[in-house]
Amino acid sequence: PTDQAFVTLATNDSYARGAMVLGKSLRSHNTSKKLVVLVGPQVSNPCQSVLKNIFDEVKVVDVLDSGDTAHLAMMKRPDLGVTFTKLHCWTLTHYSKCVFMDADTLVLSNIDELFEREELSAAPDPGWPDCFNSGVFVFRPSVETHGKLLQYCTEHGSFDGGDQGVLNGFFSDWATADISKHLPFIYNLSSIAIYTYLPAFKQYGGNAKVVHFLGKTKPWSYTFDRKTRQISGGVQEPAMHPSFLLNWWTLYASTVVPMLQEHYGDKPFHSGCVECK
Amino acid sequence: PTDQAFVTLATNDSYARGAMVLGKSLRSHNTSKKLVVLVGPQVSNPCQSVLKNIFDEVKVVDVLDSGDTAHLAMMKRPDLGVTFTKLHCWTLTHYSKCVFMDADTLVLSNIDELFEREELSAAPDPGWPDCFNSGVFVFRPSVETHGKLLQYCTEHGSFDGGDQGVLNGFFSDWATADISKHLPFIYNLSSIAIYTYLPAFKQYGGNAKVVHFLGKTKPWSYTFDRKTRQISGGVQEPAMHPSFLLNWWTLYASTVVPMLQEHYGDKPFHSGCVECK
Ligand SMILES: O=c1ccn([C@@H]2O[C@H](COP(=O)(O)OP(=O)(O)O)[C@@H](O)[C@H]2O)c(=O)[nH]1
Ligand SMILES: O=c1ccn([C@@H]2O[C@H](COP(=O)(O)OP(=O)(O)O)[C@@H](O)[C@H]2O)c(=O)[nH]1
Ligand SMILES: [Mn+2]
Ligand SMILES: [Mn+2]
Repeated sequence: PTDQAFVTLATNDSYARGAMVLGKSLRSHNTSKKLVVLVGPQVSNPCQSVLKNIFDEVKVVDVLDSGDTAHLAMMKRPDLGVTFTKLHCWTLTHYSKCVFMDADTLVLSNIDELFEREELSAAPDPGWPDCFNSGVFVFRPSVETHGKLLQYCTEHGSFDGGDQGVLNGFFSDWATADISKHLPFIYNLSSIAIYTYLPAFKQYGGNAKVVHFLGKTKPWSYTFDRKTRQISGGVQEPAMHPSFLLNWWTLYASTVVPMLQEHYGDKPFHSGCVECK
Repeated sequence: PTDQAFVTLATNDSYARGAMVLGKSLRSHNTSKKLVVLVGPQVSNPCQSVLKNIFDEVKVVDVLDSGDTAHLAMMKRPDLGVTFTKLHCWTLTHYSKCVFMDADTLVLSNIDELFEREELSAAPDPGWPDCFNSGVFVFRPSVETHGKLLQYCTEHGSFDGGDQGVLNGFFSDWATADISKHLPFIYNLSSIAIYTYLPAFKQYGGNAKVVHFLGKTKPWSYTFDRKTRQISGGVQEPAMHPSFLLNWWTLYASTVVPMLQEHYGDKPFHSGCVECK
Protein backbone atom coordinates (compact mmCIF):
# COMPACT_ATOMS: atom_id res chain seq x y z
CA PRO A 1 0.00 0.00 0.00
CA THR A 2 1.00 3.58 -0.56
CA ASP A 3 0.69 4.46 3.10
CA GLN A 4 3.67 2.29 4.01
CA ALA A 5 7.27 3.26 3.44
CA PHE A 6 10.87 2.35 3.98
CA VAL A 7 12.68 5.32 5.50
CA THR A 8 16.37 6.09 5.73
CA LEU A 9 18.53 9.07 6.68
CA ALA A 10 21.64 10.78 5.32
CA THR A 11 23.07 13.96 6.79
CA ASN A 12 26.03 14.18 4.41
CA ASP A 13 27.22 12.99 0.98
CA SER A 14 28.98 9.91 2.36
CA TYR A 15 25.88 8.50 4.05
CA ALA A 16 23.90 9.68 1.00
CA ARG A 17 25.84 7.16 -1.10
CA GLY A 18 24.83 4.49 1.40
CA ALA A 19 21.20 5.60 1.14
CA MET A 20 21.39 5.38 -2.67
CA VAL A 21 22.65 1.80 -2.56
CA LEU A 22 20.03 0.86 0.06
CA GLY A 23 17.28 2.39 -2.09
CA LYS A 24 18.54 0.58 -5.17
CA SER A 25 18.73 -2.72 -3.28
CA LEU A 26 15.10 -2.30 -2.13
CA ARG A 27 13.98 -1.51 -5.69
CA SER A 28 15.93 -4.37 -7.20
CA HIS A 29 14.04 -6.75 -4.93
CA ASN A 30 10.74 -5.30 -6.10
CA THR A 31 9.43 -3.69 -2.97
CA SER A 32 5.83 -2.53 -3.25
CA LYS A 33 6.38 0.13 -0.57
CA LYS A 34 7.26 3.80 -0.87
CA LEU A 35 10.88 4.85 -0.34
CA VAL A 36 11.64 7.93 1.76
CA VAL A 37 14.97 9.50 2.61
CA LEU A 38 15.47 12.22 5.20
CA VAL A 39 18.42 14.39 4.24
CA GLY A 40 20.37 16.98 6.14
CA PRO A 41 20.89 20.40 4.53
CA GLN A 42 24.59 19.58 3.96
CA VAL A 43 23.78 16.97 1.33
CA SER A 44 24.93 18.43 -1.99
CA ASN A 45 22.57 19.20 -4.86
CA PRO A 46 23.83 16.46 -7.19
CA CYS A 47 23.40 13.90 -4.40
CA GLN A 48 19.90 15.18 -3.62
CA SER A 49 19.08 14.83 -7.33
CA VAL A 50 20.26 11.23 -7.45
CA LEU A 51 18.30 10.48 -4.28
CA LYS A 52 15.20 11.98 -5.95
CA ASN A 53 15.66 9.51 -8.79
CA ILE A 54 15.76 6.54 -6.46
CA PHE A 55 13.36 7.55 -3.67
CA ASP A 56 9.71 8.53 -3.85
CA GLU A 57 10.25 11.27 -1.31
CA VAL A 58 13.34 13.25 -0.30
CA LYS A 59 12.64 15.31 2.78
CA VAL A 60 15.14 17.89 3.96
CA VAL A 61 15.21 17.99 7.73
CA ASP A 62 17.16 20.56 9.69
CA VAL A 63 16.49 20.36 13.40
CA LEU A 64 18.89 23.26 13.99
CA ASP A 65 16.73 25.53 11.94
CA SER A 66 13.24 24.28 12.47
CA GLY A 67 12.01 26.33 15.40
CA ASP A 68 9.82 23.51 16.64
CA THR A 69 10.06 21.19 19.65
CA ALA A 70 12.83 19.21 17.98
CA HIS A 71 14.83 22.41 17.75
CA LEU A 72 14.24 23.20 21.42
CA ALA A 73 15.20 19.66 22.45
CA MET A 74 18.31 19.94 20.33
CA MET A 75 19.34 23.14 22.07
CA LYS A 76 19.29 21.33 25.41
CA ARG A 77 21.19 18.28 24.18
CA PRO A 78 23.47 19.40 21.36
CA ASP A 79 25.46 16.17 21.79
CA LEU A 80 22.55 14.20 20.32
CA GLY A 81 22.54 15.91 16.91
CA VAL A 82 22.05 13.06 14.41
CA THR A 83 19.78 11.30 16.92
CA PHE A 84 17.22 14.10 16.78
CA THR A 85 17.35 13.96 13.00
CA LYS A 86 16.69 10.22 13.04
CA LEU A 87 13.73 10.60 15.42
CA HIS A 88 12.24 12.91 12.80
CA CYS A 89 11.01 9.79 11.00
CA TRP A 90 8.09 9.67 13.47
CA THR A 91 6.74 12.88 11.92
CA LEU A 92 6.06 11.17 8.56
CA THR A 93 2.39 10.89 9.43
CA HIS A 94 1.22 10.60 5.82
CA TYR A 95 2.34 6.97 6.25
CA SER A 96 0.59 4.66 8.69
CA LYS A 97 3.51 2.29 9.11
CA CYS A 98 7.21 2.50 8.22
CA VAL A 99 10.42 0.54 8.42
CA PHE A 100 13.46 2.63 9.25
CA MET A 101 16.75 1.39 7.85
CA ASP A 102 20.20 2.84 8.47
CA ALA A 103 21.97 4.16 5.37
CA ASP A 104 24.68 1.56 5.98
CA THR A 105 22.32 -1.38 5.44
CA LEU A 106 21.89 -3.45 2.29
CA VAL A 107 18.87 -5.53 1.36
CA LEU A 108 19.50 -9.01 -0.07
CA SER A 109 15.91 -10.07 -0.75
CA ASN A 110 12.37 -8.69 -0.62
CA ILE A 111 11.54 -7.78 2.99
CA ASP A 112 8.04 -6.30 2.58
CA GLU A 113 6.80 -8.86 5.11
CA LEU A 114 8.31 -6.61 7.82
CA PHE A 115 5.19 -4.44 7.51
CA GLU A 116 3.17 -7.21 9.16
CA ARG A 117 4.99 -6.33 12.39
CA GLU A 118 4.02 -3.70 14.93
CA GLU A 119 5.89 -0.79 16.54
CA LEU A 120 8.50 -1.23 17.87
CA SER A 121 9.91 -4.32 16.16
CA ALA A 122 13.66 -4.70 15.78
CA ALA A 123 16.39 -7.34 15.86
CA PRO A 124 18.65 -7.96 18.86
CA ASP A 125 21.98 -6.19 19.07
CA PRO A 126 24.79 -8.72 19.25
CA GLY A 127 26.76 -6.52 21.65
CA TRP A 128 24.09 -6.58 24.36
CA PRO A 129 21.29 -8.85 23.09
CA ASP A 130 18.60 -7.49 25.45
CA CYS A 131 18.91 -4.27 23.50
CA PHE A 132 17.60 -4.03 19.98
CA ASN A 133 19.78 -2.67 17.24
CA SER A 134 18.31 0.56 15.89
CA GLY A 135 19.61 0.05 12.36
CA VAL A 136 16.35 -1.63 11.24
CA PHE A 137 13.03 -1.07 13.01
CA VAL A 138 9.29 -1.04 12.35
CA PHE A 139 7.44 2.03 13.63
CA ARG A 140 4.21 4.02 13.34
CA PRO A 141 4.61 7.70 12.54
CA SER A 142 2.87 9.78 15.19
CA VAL A 143 3.32 13.36 16.29
CA GLU A 144 2.49 12.27 19.81
CA THR A 145 5.17 9.56 19.92
CA HIS A 146 7.64 11.97 18.35
CA GLY A 147 6.98 14.47 21.10
CA LYS A 148 7.39 11.86 23.81
CA LEU A 149 10.63 10.67 22.26
CA LEU A 150 12.04 14.20 22.20
CA GLN A 151 11.04 14.67 25.80
CA TYR A 152 12.65 11.37 26.76
CA CYS A 153 15.81 12.44 24.97
CA THR A 154 16.11 15.75 26.71
CA GLU A 155 15.27 14.33 30.13
CA HIS A 156 17.27 11.09 30.11
CA GLY A 157 19.76 11.55 27.28
CA SER A 158 21.15 8.46 25.61
CA PHE A 159 23.18 5.86 27.49
CA ASP A 160 25.31 5.27 24.40
CA GLY A 161 25.25 8.80 23.04
CA GLY A 162 23.18 7.82 20.00
CA ASP A 163 19.70 6.93 18.86
CA GLN A 164 20.04 3.29 19.91
CA GLY A 165 20.42 4.29 23.56
CA VAL A 166 17.43 6.62 23.40
CA LEU A 167 15.16 4.16 21.61
CA ASN A 168 16.06 1.29 23.94
CA GLY A 169 15.43 3.54 26.93
CA PHE A 170 12.05 4.58 25.55
CA PHE A 171 10.89 1.19 24.27
CA SER A 172 12.32 -0.46 27.35
CA ASP A 173 10.12 -3.55 27.44
CA TRP A 174 11.29 -4.81 24.06
CA ALA A 175 13.38 -7.64 25.58
CA THR A 176 10.60 -9.01 27.76
CA ALA A 177 7.16 -8.11 26.37
CA ASP A 178 6.35 -9.57 22.95
CA ILE A 179 8.27 -12.10 20.88
CA SER A 180 6.64 -10.90 17.65
CA LYS A 181 8.53 -7.63 18.08
CA HIS A 182 11.81 -9.52 17.92
CA LEU A 183 12.82 -9.47 14.28
CA PRO A 184 14.95 -12.43 13.32
CA PHE A 185 18.61 -11.52 13.38
CA ILE A 186 18.85 -12.14 9.62
CA TYR A 187 16.93 -8.86 9.13
CA ASN A 188 19.85 -6.96 10.65
CA LEU A 189 22.95 -9.06 10.34
CA SER A 190 25.95 -7.15 11.56
CA SER A 191 29.58 -7.80 10.92
CA ILE A 192 30.49 -8.48 14.52
CA ALA A 193 28.37 -11.63 14.60
CA ILE A 194 30.37 -13.14 11.80
CA TYR A 195 33.59 -13.03 13.73
CA THR A 196 32.41 -13.80 17.24
CA TYR A 197 30.42 -16.95 16.43
CA LEU A 198 31.52 -18.17 13.01
CA PRO A 199 29.78 -21.59 13.17
CA ALA A 200 26.41 -19.85 13.64
CA PHE A 201 27.14 -17.56 10.72
CA LYS A 202 27.96 -20.58 8.59
CA GLN A 203 24.76 -22.29 9.72
CA TYR A 204 22.32 -19.37 9.41
CA GLY A 205 24.15 -16.61 7.49
CA GLY A 206 23.03 -17.94 4.12
CA ASN A 207 19.50 -16.81 5.00
CA ALA A 208 20.57 -13.20 5.56
CA LYS A 209 18.02 -10.67 4.27
CA VAL A 210 19.63 -7.44 5.44
CA VAL A 211 23.30 -6.83 6.17
CA HIS A 212 24.28 -3.92 8.37
CA PHE A 213 27.76 -2.45 7.92
CA LEU A 214 27.79 -1.30 11.51
CA GLY A 215 30.87 0.32 13.04
CA LYS A 216 33.53 2.77 11.98
CA THR A 217 34.45 1.31 8.62
CA LYS A 218 31.62 1.75 6.13
CA PRO A 219 31.55 0.28 2.60
CA TRP A 220 32.27 3.76 1.24
CA SER A 221 35.41 3.96 3.40
CA TYR A 222 37.06 1.53 1.00
CA THR A 223 38.23 1.86 -2.58
CA PHE A 224 36.95 -0.46 -5.28
CA ASP A 225 38.78 -1.49 -8.42
CA ARG A 226 36.15 -2.20 -11.04
CA LYS A 227 38.41 -4.24 -13.29
CA THR A 228 39.86 -6.59 -10.72
CA ARG A 229 36.83 -6.36 -8.38
CA GLN A 230 39.26 -5.80 -5.53
CA ILE A 231 38.26 -3.87 -2.43
CA SER A 232 41.14 -2.08 -0.70
CA GLY A 233 41.97 0.59 1.83
CA GLY A 234 39.81 -0.68 4.67
CA VAL A 235 40.93 1.22 7.70
CA GLN A 236 41.43 -1.10 10.67
CA GLU A 237 39.30 -4.12 11.37
CA PRO A 238 37.95 -6.55 8.79
CA ALA A 239 34.59 -4.88 9.32
CA MET A 240 32.45 -7.22 7.28
CA HIS A 241 32.44 -10.44 5.41
CA PRO A 242 34.11 -9.67 2.05
CA SER A 243 31.26 -11.16 0.02
CA PHE A 244 28.71 -8.71 1.47
CA LEU A 245 31.08 -5.83 0.87
CA LEU A 246 31.38 -6.97 -2.72
CA ASN A 247 27.56 -7.02 -3.01
CA TRP A 248 27.47 -3.42 -1.93
CA TRP A 249 30.22 -2.28 -4.29
CA THR A 250 28.81 -4.18 -7.25
CA LEU A 251 25.44 -2.49 -6.86
CA TYR A 252 27.04 0.89 -6.20
CA ALA A 253 29.41 0.77 -9.18
CA SER A 254 26.84 -0.51 -11.64
CA THR A 255 23.76 1.50 -10.72
CA VAL A 256 24.67 4.46 -8.51
CA VAL A 257 27.92 5.72 -10.02
CA PRO A 258 26.37 6.26 -13.48
CA MET A 259 23.67 8.40 -11.88
CA LEU A 260 26.24 10.40 -9.93
CA GLN A 261 28.25 10.93 -13.13
CA GLU A 262 25.14 12.21 -14.86
CA HIS A 263 24.26 14.68 -12.13
CA TYR A 264 27.78 15.89 -11.38
CA GLY A 265 28.38 16.44 -15.11
CA ASP A 266 31.79 18.02 -15.56
CA LYS A 267 32.30 18.63 -11.85
CA PRO A 268 34.72 16.23 -10.21
CA PHE A 269 33.42 14.03 -7.40
CA HIS A 270 34.68 11.23 -5.22
CA SER A 271 33.20 7.97 -6.47
CA GLY A 272 35.45 5.67 -4.48
CA CYS A 273 36.01 3.55 -7.59
CA VAL A 274 39.27 3.29 -9.41
CA GLU A 275 38.32 3.20 -13.12
CA CYS A 276 34.83 4.47 -12.34
CA LYS A 277 35.92 8.04 -12.81
CA PRO B 1 11.22 -27.54 46.91
CA THR B 2 13.43 -30.59 47.02
CA ASP B 3 12.45 -31.72 43.55
CA GLN B 4 14.24 -28.76 41.97
CA ALA B 5 17.97 -28.52 41.51
CA PHE B 6 20.81 -26.53 40.05
CA VAL B 7 22.99 -28.84 37.97
CA THR B 8 26.54 -28.40 36.72
CA LEU B 9 29.19 -30.56 35.08
CA ALA B 10 32.92 -31.12 35.48
CA THR B 11 34.86 -33.75 33.55
CA ASN B 12 38.25 -32.90 35.03
CA ASP B 13 39.86 -31.25 38.05
CA SER B 14 40.09 -27.83 36.39
CA TYR B 15 36.39 -27.56 35.66
CA ALA B 16 35.78 -29.17 39.07
CA ARG B 17 37.30 -26.07 40.67
CA GLY B 18 34.86 -23.97 38.66
CA ALA B 19 31.99 -26.16 39.86
CA MET B 20 33.12 -25.72 43.46
CA VAL B 21 33.10 -21.95 43.18
CA LEU B 22 29.71 -22.01 41.42
CA GLY B 23 28.28 -24.23 44.16
CA LYS B 24 29.68 -21.98 46.86
CA SER B 25 28.27 -18.89 45.14
CA LEU B 26 24.81 -20.48 44.99
CA ARG B 27 25.00 -21.44 48.69
CA SER B 28 26.26 -18.03 49.73
CA HIS B 29 23.17 -16.49 48.15
CA ASN B 30 20.97 -18.86 50.12
CA THR B 31 19.44 -20.96 47.39
CA SER B 32 16.61 -23.19 48.57
CA LYS B 33 17.24 -25.64 45.73
CA LYS B 34 19.29 -28.83 45.64
CA LEU B 35 22.77 -28.69 44.10
CA VAL B 36 23.89 -31.47 41.75
CA VAL B 37 27.19 -31.92 39.96
CA LEU B 38 27.80 -34.45 37.22
CA VAL B 39 31.43 -35.52 37.24
CA GLY B 40 33.54 -37.44 34.78
CA PRO B 41 35.53 -40.44 36.03
CA GLN B 42 38.77 -38.45 35.62
CA VAL B 43 37.91 -36.11 38.48
CA SER B 44 40.32 -36.97 41.32
CA ASN B 45 39.19 -38.33 44.67
CA PRO B 46 40.08 -35.21 46.68
CA CYS B 47 38.12 -33.06 44.25
CA GLN B 48 35.15 -35.42 44.37
CA SER B 49 35.29 -35.19 48.18
CA VAL B 50 35.26 -31.41 48.12
CA LEU B 51 32.36 -31.47 45.65
CA LYS B 52 30.48 -33.78 48.03
CA ASN B 53 30.88 -31.19 50.74
CA ILE B 54 29.38 -28.45 48.60
CA PHE B 55 26.79 -30.29 46.51
CA ASP B 56 23.83 -32.38 47.62
CA GLU B 57 24.51 -34.92 44.92
CA VAL B 58 27.67 -35.84 43.03
CA LYS B 59 26.88 -38.17 40.16
CA VAL B 60 29.65 -39.87 38.24
CA VAL B 61 28.72 -40.12 34.58
CA ASP B 62 30.80 -42.00 32.07
CA VAL B 63 29.12 -42.20 28.70
CA LEU B 64 32.08 -44.22 27.36
CA ASP B 65 31.38 -46.94 29.83
CA SER B 66 27.68 -46.89 30.31
CA GLY B 67 26.45 -49.38 27.75
CA ASP B 68 23.21 -47.47 27.26
CA THR B 69 21.88 -45.36 24.39
CA ALA B 70 24.19 -42.49 25.31
CA HIS B 71 27.10 -44.86 24.88
CA LEU B 72 25.86 -45.97 21.49
CA ALA B 73 25.30 -42.38 20.36
CA MET B 74 28.77 -41.52 21.57
CA MET B 75 30.29 -44.32 19.49
CA LYS B 76 28.78 -42.78 16.37
CA ARG B 77 29.85 -39.21 17.15
CA PRO B 78 33.05 -39.42 19.22
CA ASP B 79 33.69 -35.73 18.39
CA LEU B 80 30.82 -34.75 20.67
CA GLY B 81 32.28 -36.21 23.88
CA VAL B 82 31.59 -33.58 26.53
CA THR B 83 28.29 -32.74 24.82
CA PHE B 84 26.90 -36.20 25.51
CA THR B 85 27.99 -35.86 29.11
CA LYS B 86 26.17 -32.52 29.43
CA LEU B 87 22.98 -33.94 27.92
CA HIS B 88 23.06 -36.50 30.72
CA CYS B 89 21.44 -33.84 32.92
CA TRP B 90 18.08 -34.78 31.35
CA THR B 91 18.30 -38.17 33.07
CA LEU B 92 18.05 -36.60 36.55
CA THR B 93 14.36 -37.57 36.71
CA HIS B 94 14.16 -37.50 40.52
CA TYR B 95 13.91 -33.73 39.97
CA SER B 96 10.94 -32.21 38.19
CA LYS B 97 12.73 -29.06 37.10
CA CYS B 98 16.38 -28.04 36.95
CA VAL B 99 18.63 -25.17 35.97
CA PHE B 100 21.83 -26.20 34.26
CA MET B 101 24.81 -23.92 34.79
CA ASP B 102 28.24 -24.21 33.19
CA ALA B 103 31.09 -24.76 35.63
CA ASP B 104 32.57 -21.46 34.43
CA THR B 105 29.63 -19.40 35.71
CA LEU B 106 29.41 -17.45 38.97
CA VAL B 107 26.26 -16.40 40.77
CA LEU B 108 26.11 -12.83 42.13
CA SER B 109 22.68 -12.94 43.77
CA ASN B 110 19.88 -15.39 44.55
CA ILE B 111 18.44 -16.68 41.27
CA ASP B 112 15.85 -19.19 42.54
CA GLU B 113 13.23 -17.27 40.53
CA LEU B 114 14.58 -19.05 37.44
CA PHE B 115 12.53 -22.09 38.48
CA GLU B 116 9.37 -20.19 37.57
CA ARG B 117 10.42 -20.58 33.93
CA GLU B 118 9.70 -23.50 31.64
CA GLU B 119 11.89 -25.73 29.45
CA LEU B 120 13.77 -24.53 27.48
CA SER B 121 14.52 -21.10 28.88
CA ALA B 122 17.90 -19.50 28.25
CA ALA B 123 19.52 -16.16 27.56
CA PRO B 124 20.55 -14.97 24.09
CA ASP B 125 24.10 -15.60 22.91
CA PRO B 126 25.78 -12.30 22.10
CA GLY B 127 27.64 -13.86 19.17
CA TRP B 128 24.46 -14.78 17.28
CA PRO B 129 21.54 -13.49 19.35
CA ASP B 130 18.89 -15.73 17.75
CA CYS B 131 20.74 -18.60 19.39
CA PHE B 132 20.58 -19.08 23.12
CA ASN B 133 23.73 -19.55 25.12
CA SER B 134 23.80 -23.01 26.66
CA GLY B 135 25.76 -21.95 29.73
CA VAL B 136 22.56 -21.36 31.76
CA PHE B 137 19.24 -23.01 30.93
CA VAL B 138 16.04 -24.22 32.58
CA PHE B 139 14.98 -27.77 31.69
CA ARG B 140 12.76 -30.67 32.75
CA PRO B 141 14.53 -33.98 33.26
CA SER B 142 12.90 -36.63 31.10
CA VAL B 143 14.15 -39.93 29.76
CA GLU B 144 12.11 -39.34 26.64
CA THR B 145 13.64 -35.91 25.93
CA HIS B 146 17.08 -37.33 26.69
CA GLY B 147 16.56 -40.05 24.09
CA LYS B 148 15.35 -37.57 21.49
CA LEU B 149 18.33 -35.32 22.17
CA LEU B 150 20.77 -38.21 21.70
CA GLN B 151 19.03 -39.15 18.47
CA TYR B 152 19.18 -35.55 17.25
CA CYS B 153 22.89 -35.47 18.08
CA THR B 154 23.75 -38.59 16.18
CA GLU B 155 21.61 -37.67 13.17
CA HIS B 156 22.39 -33.95 12.82
CA GLY B 157 25.56 -33.47 14.83
CA SER B 158 26.28 -30.01 16.20
CA PHE B 159 26.78 -26.99 13.96
CA ASP B 160 29.34 -25.61 16.38
CA GLY B 161 30.81 -28.89 17.53
CA GLY B 162 29.44 -28.50 21.07
CA ASP B 163 26.29 -28.73 23.14
CA GLN B 164 25.15 -25.22 22.20
CA GLY B 165 24.83 -26.20 18.55
CA VAL B 166 22.91 -29.37 19.40
CA LEU B 167 20.54 -27.68 21.85
CA ASN B 168 19.80 -24.78 19.49
CA GLY B 169 19.15 -27.23 16.68
CA PHE B 170 16.79 -29.26 18.87
CA PHE B 171 14.98 -26.35 20.58
CA SER B 172 14.94 -24.49 17.29
CA ASP B 173 11.91 -22.26 17.94
CA TRP B 174 13.49 -20.54 20.93
CA ALA B 175 14.07 -17.28 19.03
CA THR B 176 10.51 -16.98 17.74
CA ALA B 177 8.06 -18.86 19.97
CA ASP B 178 7.78 -17.58 23.55
CA ILE B 179 9.27 -14.47 25.12
CA SER B 180 9.05 -15.98 28.63
CA LYS B 181 11.70 -18.49 27.55
CA HIS B 182 14.11 -15.65 26.92
CA LEU B 183 16.02 -15.21 30.15
CA PRO B 184 17.27 -11.67 30.62
CA PHE B 185 20.88 -11.38 29.54
CA ILE B 186 21.91 -10.53 33.12
CA TYR B 187 21.35 -14.23 33.95
CA ASN B 188 24.19 -15.17 31.62
CA LEU B 189 26.42 -12.18 31.18
CA SER B 190 29.43 -13.09 29.12
CA SER B 191 32.69 -11.26 28.76
CA ILE B 192 32.31 -10.48 25.09
CA ALA B 193 29.35 -8.19 25.74
CA ILE B 194 31.45 -5.99 27.95
CA TYR B 195 33.88 -5.15 25.22
CA THR B 196 31.62 -4.95 22.20
CA TYR B 197 29.01 -2.57 23.67
CA LEU B 198 30.56 -0.93 26.70
CA PRO B 199 27.84 1.75 27.17
CA ALA B 200 25.21 -1.00 27.55
CA PHE B 201 27.40 -2.79 30.07
CA LYS B 202 27.76 0.42 32.03
CA GLN B 203 23.99 0.96 31.89
CA TYR B 204 22.81 -2.57 32.70
CA GLY B 205 25.87 -4.51 33.93
CA GLY B 206 25.34 -3.46 37.54
CA ASN B 207 22.25 -5.70 37.58
CA ALA B 208 24.22 -8.80 36.60
CA LYS B 209 23.06 -11.93 38.42
CA VAL B 210 25.24 -14.54 36.72
CA VAL B 211 28.57 -13.98 34.99
CA HIS B 212 29.80 -16.52 32.48
CA PHE B 213 33.55 -16.80 31.92
CA LEU B 214 32.98 -18.03 28.40
CA GLY B 215 35.89 -18.65 26.04
CA LYS B 216 39.35 -20.09 26.23
CA THR B 217 40.63 -18.24 29.26
CA LYS B 218 38.88 -19.43 32.41
CA PRO B 219 39.29 -17.90 35.87
CA TRP B 220 41.42 -20.90 36.86
CA SER B 221 43.76 -20.20 33.91
CA TYR B 222 45.14 -17.26 35.89
CA THR B 223 47.26 -17.02 38.99
CA PHE B 224 46.09 -15.10 42.04
CA ASP B 225 48.26 -13.40 44.60
CA ARG B 226 46.37 -13.44 47.86
CA LYS B 227 48.34 -10.68 49.50
CA THR B 228 48.23 -8.11 46.74
CA ARG B 229 44.92 -9.40 45.31
CA GLN B 230 46.55 -9.29 41.87
CA ILE B 231 45.42 -11.60 39.09
CA SER B 232 48.12 -12.46 36.56
CA GLY B 233 49.07 -14.84 33.79
CA GLY B 234 45.94 -14.47 31.67
CA VAL B 235 46.76 -16.08 28.37
CA GLN B 236 45.66 -13.84 25.47
CA GLU B 237 42.57 -11.70 25.53
CA PRO B 238 41.29 -9.71 28.50
CA ALA B 239 38.63 -12.38 28.85
CA MET B 240 36.46 -10.75 31.47
CA HIS B 241 35.92 -7.62 33.41
CA PRO B 242 38.57 -7.66 36.14
CA SER B 243 36.07 -7.05 38.95
CA PHE B 244 34.14 -10.25 38.12
CA LEU B 245 37.38 -12.18 37.94
CA LEU B 246 38.25 -10.84 41.36
CA ASN B 247 34.85 -11.99 42.67
CA TRP B 248 35.63 -15.50 41.48
CA TRP B 249 39.11 -15.57 42.97
CA THR B 250 38.04 -14.10 46.28
CA LEU B 251 35.39 -16.78 46.74
CA TYR B 252 37.76 -19.50 45.53
CA ALA B 253 40.67 -18.48 47.76
CA SER B 254 38.60 -17.98 50.88
CA THR B 255 36.18 -20.92 50.73
CA VAL B 256 37.38 -23.54 48.23
CA VAL B 257 41.13 -23.61 48.76
CA PRO B 258 40.83 -24.45 52.49
CA MET B 259 38.62 -27.42 51.58
CA LEU B 260 41.07 -28.58 48.93
CA GLN B 261 43.91 -28.30 51.45
CA GLU B 262 41.98 -30.42 53.90
CA HIS B 263 41.22 -33.17 51.39
CA TYR B 264 44.61 -33.24 49.68
CA GLY B 265 46.32 -33.36 53.07
CA ASP B 266 50.04 -33.79 52.53
CA LYS B 267 49.70 -34.36 48.79
CA PRO B 268 50.71 -31.38 46.65
CA PHE B 269 48.07 -29.84 44.39
CA HIS B 270 47.74 -26.88 42.07
CA SER B 271 45.70 -24.23 43.84
CA GLY B 272 46.48 -21.42 41.42
CA CYS B 273 47.13 -19.09 44.34
CA VAL B 274 50.48 -17.73 45.22
CA GLU B 275 50.60 -17.77 49.07
CA CYS B 276 47.60 -20.09 49.24
CA LYS B 277 49.85 -23.11 49.30
O1 LIG C 1 27.01 11.46 10.26
C1 LIG C 1 26.03 10.70 10.21
C2 LIG C 1 25.90 9.60 11.07
C3 LIG C 1 24.78 8.79 10.93
N1 LIG C 1 23.82 9.04 10.01
C4 LIG C 1 22.62 8.21 9.90
O2 LIG C 1 22.45 7.51 11.12
C5 LIG C 1 22.59 6.11 10.92
C6 LIG C 1 23.28 5.48 12.13
O3 LIG C 1 24.66 5.76 12.13
P1 LIG C 1 25.74 4.63 11.78
O4 LIG C 1 25.15 3.68 10.79
O5 LIG C 1 27.04 5.29 11.40
O6 LIG C 1 25.92 3.91 13.18
P2 LIG C 1 26.29 2.34 13.42
O7 LIG C 1 25.22 1.53 12.74
O8 LIG C 1 27.65 2.11 12.82
O9 LIG C 1 26.26 2.19 14.92
C7 LIG C 1 23.36 6.00 9.61
O10 LIG C 1 23.24 4.73 8.99
C8 LIG C 1 22.76 7.13 8.82
O11 LIG C 1 21.47 6.77 8.34
C9 LIG C 1 23.98 10.13 9.15
O12 LIG C 1 23.13 10.35 8.30
N2 LIG C 1 25.07 10.93 9.28
O1 LIG D 1 36.68 -30.28 29.25
C1 LIG D 1 35.56 -29.87 29.61
C2 LIG D 1 34.84 -28.91 28.87
C3 LIG D 1 33.61 -28.49 29.33
N1 LIG D 1 33.08 -29.00 30.46
C4 LIG D 1 31.75 -28.58 30.93
O2 LIG D 1 31.03 -28.05 29.83
C5 LIG D 1 30.78 -26.65 30.05
C6 LIG D 1 30.87 -25.89 28.73
O3 LIG D 1 32.22 -25.72 28.33
P1 LIG D 1 32.93 -24.28 28.42
O4 LIG D 1 32.37 -23.56 29.58
O5 LIG D 1 34.42 -24.49 28.41
O6 LIG D 1 32.48 -23.61 27.06
P2 LIG D 1 32.27 -22.03 26.81
O7 LIG D 1 31.22 -21.58 27.78
O8 LIG D 1 33.59 -21.36 27.01
O9 LIG D 1 31.79 -21.98 25.38
C7 LIG D 1 31.79 -26.24 31.10
O10 LIG D 1 31.45 -25.07 31.79
C8 LIG D 1 31.82 -27.46 31.98
O11 LIG D 1 30.66 -27.53 32.80
C9 LIG D 1 33.79 -29.93 31.21
O12 LIG D 1 33.32 -30.38 32.25
N2 LIG D 1 35.00 -30.34 30.76
MN1 LIG E 1 24.36 1.66 10.93
MN1 LIG F 1 30.97 -21.88 29.76
